[in-house]
Amino acid sequence: MNVLVEFEPVGRRLEAAVGQTVLAAAQGILDTESGGVIAPCGGKGLCGRCKIRLEEGELSPPNENEIKLLGKDDIDRGYRLACQAILLGPAKIEIPRETLTGRQNLQVDGMAITVTPDPAVKRYTVPLKTTSVAYPYSTLQQVQLFLKNICPGTGLGIDSGLLSKVDAMAEEGSLNITIRGAEVINAFKAPGGSGPLGYAVDLGTTKIAGFLVDLETGSTLEADGILNPQIIYGEDVISRLVYALEGEEQYDRITRVLREGLDSLLQTLCQKAGVSPEYVEEAVIAGNTAMHHLLLKLPVRQLATAPYVPAATLPLEIKSRELGLSMATGSVSLLMPGIAGFVGGDHVAMILSSRIHEAPGVTLGLDIGTNTEIVLAVNGELLCCSCASGPAFEGAHIQQGMRAVEGAVSKVKLIDRGRRVHYETIGHKPPMGICGSGILDATAELYREGIVSYNGRLDKGHPRVRLNPGRKVSEFILVPSGEDGAGQDIVITQKDISEIQLAKAAMAAGTKILLKEAGLKEENIERVIVAGSFGTHLLLDSAKAIGMLPAIPDERFQQVGNAAGSGARMALISLSARKKAEEIAGKIKYIELAAMPEFGDTYINEMSFPHI
Amino acid sequence: MNVLVEFEPVGRRLEAAVGQTVLAAAQGILDTESGGVIAPCGGKGLCGRCKIRLEEGELSPPNENEIKLLGKDDIDRGYRLACQAILLGPAKIEIPRETLTGRQNLQVDGMAITVTPDPAVKRYTVPLKTTSVAYPYSTLQQVQLFLKNICPGTGLGIDSGLLSKVDAMAEEGSLNITIRGAEVINAFKAPGGSGPLGYAVDLGTTKIAGFLVDLETGSTLEADGILNPQIIYGEDVISRLVYALEGEEQYDRITRVLREGLDSLLQTLCQKAGVSPEYVEEAVIAGNTAMHHLLLKLPVRQLATAPYVPAATLPLEIKSRELGLSMATGSVSLLMPGIAGFVGGDHVAMILSSRIHEAPGVTLGLDIGTNTEIVLAVNGELLCCSCASGPAFEGAHIQQGMRAVEGAVSKVKLIDRGRRVHYETIGHKPPMGICGSGILDATAELYREGIVSYNGRLDKGHPRVRLNPGRKVSEFILVPSGEDGAGQDIVITQKDISEIQLAKAAMAAGTKILLKEAGLKEENIERVIVAGSFGTHLLLDSAKAIGMLPAIPDERFQQVGNAAGSGARMALISLSARKKAEEIAGKIKYIELAAMPEFGDTYINEMSFPHI
Repeated sequence: MNVLVEFEPVGRRLEAAVGQTVLAAAQGILDTESGGVIAPCGGKGLCGRCKIRLEEGELSPPNENEIKLLGKDDIDRGYRLACQAILLGPAKIEIPRETLTGRQNLQVDGMAITVTPDPAVKRYTVPLKTTSVAYPYSTLQQVQLFLKNICPGTGLGIDSGLLSKVDAMAEEGSLNITIRGAEVINAFKAPGGSGPLGYAVDLGTTKIAGFLVDLETGSTLEADGILNPQIIYGEDVISRLVYALEGEEQYDRITRVLREGLDSLLQTLCQKAGVSPEYVEEAVIAGNTAMHHLLLKLPVRQLATAPYVPAATLPLEIKSRELGLSMATGSVSLLMPGIAGFVGGDHVAMILSSRIHEAPGVTLGLDIGTNTEIVLAVNGELLCCSCASGPAFEGAHIQQGMRAVEGAVSKVKLIDRGRRVHYETIGHKPPMGICGSGILDATAELYREGIVSYNGRLDKGHPRVRLNPGRKVSEFILVPSGEDGAGQDIVITQKDISEIQLAKAAMAAGTKILLKEAGLKEENIERVIVAGSFGTHLLLDSAKAIGMLPAIPDERFQQVGNAAGSGARMALISLSARKKAEEIAGKIKYIELAAMPEFGDTYINEMSFPHI
Repeated sequence: MNVLVEFEPVGRRLEAAVGQTVLAAAQGILDTESGGVIAPCGGKGLCGRCKIRLEEGELSPPNENEIKLLGKDDIDRGYRLACQAILLGPAKIEIPRETLTGRQNLQVDGMAITVTPDPAVKRYTVPLKTTSVAYPYSTLQQVQLFLKNICPGTGLGIDSGLLSKVDAMAEEGSLNITIRGAEVINAFKAPGGSGPLGYAVDLGTTKIAGFLVDLETGSTLEADGILNPQIIYGEDVISRLVYALEGEEQYDRITRVLREGLDSLLQTLCQKAGVSPEYVEEAVIAGNTAMHHLLLKLPVRQLATAPYVPAATLPLEIKSRELGLSMATGSVSLLMPGIAGFVGGDHVAMILSSRIHEAPGVTLGLDIGTNTEIVLAVNGELLCCSCASGPAFEGAHIQQGMRAVEGAVSKVKLIDRGRRVHYETIGHKPPMGICGSGILDATAELYREGIVSYNGRLDKGHPRVRLNPGRKVSEFILVPSGEDGAGQDIVITQKDISEIQLAKAAMAAGTKILLKEAGLKEENIERVIVAGSFGTHLLLDSAKAIGMLPAIPDERFQQVGNAAGSGARMALISLSARKKAEEIAGKIKYIELAAMPEFGDTYINEMSFPHI
């Protein structure tokens, strides 16, 4: 007898035979578009993962397995195991998000990316019998017999770290194992619990962003960030490389603090999610080339000095334990492939997540930071370069600069020809300094109002411009001490403006040279992707006003936030995304700006602000 | 214009065009049957490996590359590089053994096995350009570019140990690299030199045999042996397991001495061959199950006590550095797959090399040692068991027993109804004791002459039989003190005979039970393979006389020496041999003798000697 079964929230209904399990019924209709019910143990009632909820209708009463694996509370709330519950009549079934497999959206600021989970690791539940004289098979031998059935003919190995970790004598029950390629990398007893987890890292010179990801559903469980602990050995890349070159001990130390930082970030994420790091079974790290070198302790002399070449750019896989990460015993960490000394795996990750490599027409991508990486894509052909834009937009080298935290002036508007200043601070706290977007706005407004000339000189005759007696430079008073609780005068100095000129000239010159290389003009650009934290918060009008970004219509711009972190997550979730990253790194053409004869002139020209 | 070229010693002649290189000409005709000329760098004149010698005829004069890579001495003796030397007329070319690839004979005592080299590692020569601003590629980046050309599309990794070992800055020249699976495992600068080398180990409880093998040609360069250094913690397997179970420190120690022993044997082999262990790029270890466990430090409690199960039997691959072997940085050691607690990887290796698994009809195989493993093959179906034959044939537990070294009585013949004794000692040195084959001969002769009864009692009335007053047991005087320089009476005691009875009963009972299980009788056995050092030296007539081996015609027996060592070498040289070993381990049926109800009676019956 057939009855009608409805599945929510996927909105599918079908006829199914009475006496079938819910899992069997669900497998009949759920295609990859809407996703299926996950069943890692193959419907044997072992893993407890195919949890569904009966909304209406009639199922067989919960059996022992279900009570054991789900617990009384869940049973009371209507939860069941799809592989154990048998249809007795028409039913309406809810498939919770964590039970749903298939296509999932990976949410990225400003972009919704659809990635079908296809992770490097796969988990299985192995039923175990007690080892005895009558059944003389150890735990690993039973695992081996199980694997022979599910993947016959493949010579599966086992990570050497697991060999002595797994109890030789098996007890009646089950064991979860995780396979990566041709290797068993994790084994643990656990009733159900989460699917395999992954750790994605955007490893920046200043900040490290970490993401804890469910590899089966692709969803991000937790996200957090820390300052790169290497910052105590220098703010910029070069000073850290120089420190590493001081000696073996120094190099050991700067590598160790980074590894410890990555591990502590992982532990924080796991704590927030209430899971043990031992269940984190894969990591993907996207950093700039220098960060990759310092993490792996690769030779750096040739990276710190001419010819500025990386020791390695290929995607590197390394056992996570070798990086000091407290992840699953045999788990692997992948470092995204890089391109050149100053264009690293983070840029590849950014291109991957913003799909620049697949975009039709002409797309420009900028990942703004101390070094700004720029990519120009023309129907899939990729050109890139790196320019030393400096740390001005991170608040460094700016008189009253600060990071984008509470109390930073982040928006500026001049009123009445600059006699009055409207501004906003982050968190609406009393102004303490000025962050990247505030500096950019202020510069653009000063230029628009004619208080700064096209070549960057402050108008000394303006009522808010004064000569700072101590420093002997002109400065524009943005917020006088005392106003709105400001503890000091907040100013923009002549030198600050010069720093902004240097930064924007670098970006503009890089863009121009890439365009020239491709035989294109600014107006040919159909799409601009602006990535990075500052890039996401900057006001496009201000950036265009000072000539930092191309003067093309706003609708062609997309500000995408931490695109490198999103790319790392994509590569973590999906092997095909990983393959794409490798293709990007393999086909992109790197332009060394310093080697371009026209770079010098272009850079000098771009120091000026554009004619309005 | 075509001319006639002859290749020796393969005995092939062909027509080739004048102006062709010798390598091109050789590639035209040499099929896999006779073998080809090796050319790891692909004929670019970089590696210096395609060395040939001009016997007669005319070639282009030696060029710079040849002089650099071969040296003046070799050039003077007519040696050339096949890829550089150009045919100018008819020629007769010698291809030296080390230049020949393809099928090679692996010589095993009593068997000639043909194995086509197909090793797990493959070496390439990468041409390098100096890293500079104009050519901004590091060594590893150049390796990566090279690999992309030779194996496009495969995501090749690099062993993490190599990352910091390879100089980042490349210099004009070349680099040898070795690939295993999808990983670069070794990289070194070297002009030519040997092909990749391998280390095969027969890891016995008492003795360890090691072989240094050229993986490209399959030939064994050096062979040597040491005593298993664990012997100081117990002569037999069980006492070593018990020692390991005493505590963490003890287990560490017994594992460490074994690893050190394996490494020192490797170093000895390399020293003899004049190569560095860093060029040894793969190892295969075939040992009994307990030795594998003690080497890898696997859990052993369940192996030392009931249910006597191994923690793992799958073929285990582990980085050689984790075993403390001073081999190539990223090299891997494979432990042959095992079968059960007392039937290990060494037995699989023995079956592999003696081809018992492929033999038509009925074959019996015995690897005689302290534990004797017995396999019965019936048209490819495999049954096996292990029996505790004890160390009597290794000279232990025998009054005047000793190992088969100089001065050991190794052959015995009784004359004139046992009144006179003819014997031989190893090395024709004065008799000091008696080794396995001597004890076997003596027992058989005593039984044949009626001095020992069918149930093993010595005839106390025989003139050479006396009651030893101190020990109160009868003994037969084989060599009186003083005769031929003997420092003491060399005797066979009543207890010695009992030890032999125990040993032979175990082997005979094991054989009987396997035959019964297969529904066969002794006379159905078409072939008997006897392996192991003692098995190779024993006199078949003696072994049959006491009922240790089946009483079937001599021509059905084959004594094959160290068949486990040969199997390890086969698996080292050839991936397909490795696959076969896995198939053998997978399909063999293990019979636990202790669990067979008929074993007790069969064993007791076999204590008696057979009717003559």
